[in-house]
Amino acid sequence: MIAYLNNTFMEEEKAVLQVGDLALQRGYAAFDYLRTLNGAPLFVDDYLERFFASAAAMHLQPTQTPQQLKQIIYELIAKNNLSQSGIRMILTGGFSPDSYTPTTPNLIVLQQPLQMPSAEKFEVGLKIITHEYERDLPEVKSINYLMGIWLQQKMKAQNAADVLYYKNGWVSEFPRSNVFIVTKEGKLVTPAAGVLKGITRMKLLQLVKGKTEVEQRPLHLDEVKGAAEVFMTSTTKRILPICQIDDVVIGDGKAGPVTTKLNQLFLELEEKETTSTTVV
Amino acid sequence: MIAYLNNTFMEEEKAVLQVGDLALQRGYAAFDYLRTLNGAPLFVDDYLERFFASAAAMHLQPTQTPQQLKQIIYELIAKNNLSQSGIRMILTGGFSPDSYTPTTPNLIVLQQPLQMPSAEKFEVGLKIITHEYERDLPEVKSINYLMGIWLQQKMKAQNAADVLYYKNGWVSEFPRSNVFIVTKEGKLVTPAAGVLKGITRMKLLQLVKGKTEVEQRPLHLDEVKGAAEVFMTSTTKRILPICQIDDVVIGDGKAGPVTTKLNQLFLELEEKETTSTTVV
Repeated sequence: MIAYLNNTFMEEEKAVLQVGDLALQRGYAAFDYLRTLNGAPLFVDDYLERFFASAAAMHLQPTQTPQQLKQIIYELIAKNNLSQSGIRMILTGGFSPDSYTPTTPNLIVLQQPLQMPSAEKFEVGLKIITHEYERDLPEVKSINYLMGIWLQQKMKAQNAADVLYYKNGWVSEFPRSNVFIVTKEGKLVTPAAGVLKGITRMKLLQLVKGKTEVEQRPLHLDEVKGAAEVFMTSTTKRILPICQIDDVVIGDGKAGPVTTKLNQLFLELEEKETTSTTVV
Repeated sequence: MIAYLNNTFMEEEKAVLQVGDLALQRGYAAFDYLRTLNGAPLFVDDYLERFFASAAAMHLQPTQTPQQLKQIIYELIAKNNLSQSGIRMILTGGFSPDSYTPTTPNLIVLQQPLQMPSAEKFEVGLKIITHEYERDLPEVKSINYLMGIWLQQKMKAQNAADVLYYKNGWVSEFPRSNVFIVTKEGKLVTPAAGVLKGITRMKLLQLVKGKTEVEQRPLHLDEVKGAAEVFMTSTTKRILPICQIDDVVIGDGKAGPVTTKLNQLFLELEEKETTSTTVV
């Protein structure tokens, strides 16, 4: 696979960084992840906007403009020629003389093949667990996944596919996904603050605007466990139903009708998007 | 400077890692930092014990034993021939096929010259600010310094040398140092839990055992601001007096007598330690 590092495209094995970089020394780097479909990047401008916003929030100054990075992404896609893939962008704190103060960032762009969840996985839904935790700088997408990765052993031990964070009873997000519920009255609810604003989350909110009642507000874990349907949204998962949270079965324990309908709408949107953007 | 990466000593500029490593992708790596004095590592067994404990807590399996890593440290010291230095050890999550699950770690050991704070800096003391925050997995030393680095701009804006974390009024630690107070009754108090157990902190507690009354317990920010003396301890700072916290001047605004005495004791200890260990 071809990768991009600073100003050069190269074989990924050759994309190496000196160990003095602040990402390695202090876990300090902005991050984002988008995917491609039919050889075109999906919602690329939204991801780029978020990536540059994360960089700015982290006081990192990219040496490229969003337009230049977009061009790099298109070149990378052309070079690797994958129909469906994930593209990872990392803007590091750079080679810091004191191993602490950010300096000129290093930019890494990587592409990998991506397998999206199957229709069968969607139908069965996911069992998840919960963990009391609040991400640092939750509205910034950084490489800080310490807690999410650390919790993998707990997830495995409980045969869970993911872990939902809450604090003082209030739900926020998964390590890499947003959470939605469908109330018994058919309303969509998702936490409004203290979460990473997912692009899939945003697109879904735009899709249902004016058609479904939506509330963006604090969401209690008890309300989640008592909801008619619960699902997660993310770039690599699209929309996936949650069938069990800790010991509580949600709804009838499989993909609910609203979740199924929303997933269908989202699939249509992404087909439309990538068909139209490839023409440009 | 010579560095060590996995099984090889090399010039630090040549110490590079493929960008697929989990430290770069997800900020996931165990970390530790010790220093050398008179060409010998100070309290090396204590640092190694903590480093391996952090690795174990992070579910990382080092390919070296503590004894082997100690040997590497001594070899590095011999190669670089610095009288006074800092040695940085990073054990990464490795080249993860899914960019999320830790695998065989990469081990990095770096050495750099280190300038300890001057006697003048000690005398003047530090002005610090406070920030409501609690580190993830606080008893584990990892490369997660997202908040500490992010707060540097706030520190600069307020002309502060460091930032003290508290949560719901209870003080924990600095991003890279522990906190102690001296009460008006002459007792030493330092937080007992939810902090990284610093080696300097531990050595100081051992030094004063039986001579000074010490309490390891929850410590409220109000008590810190009203203390007779406040100081920080860390590997790179030894003991440094805090003269001002936010807008509150501590004591008479300079190094207090207990802090000065403890610093003297610590200097004697480290001289004794490195004089004796160089003989071995």
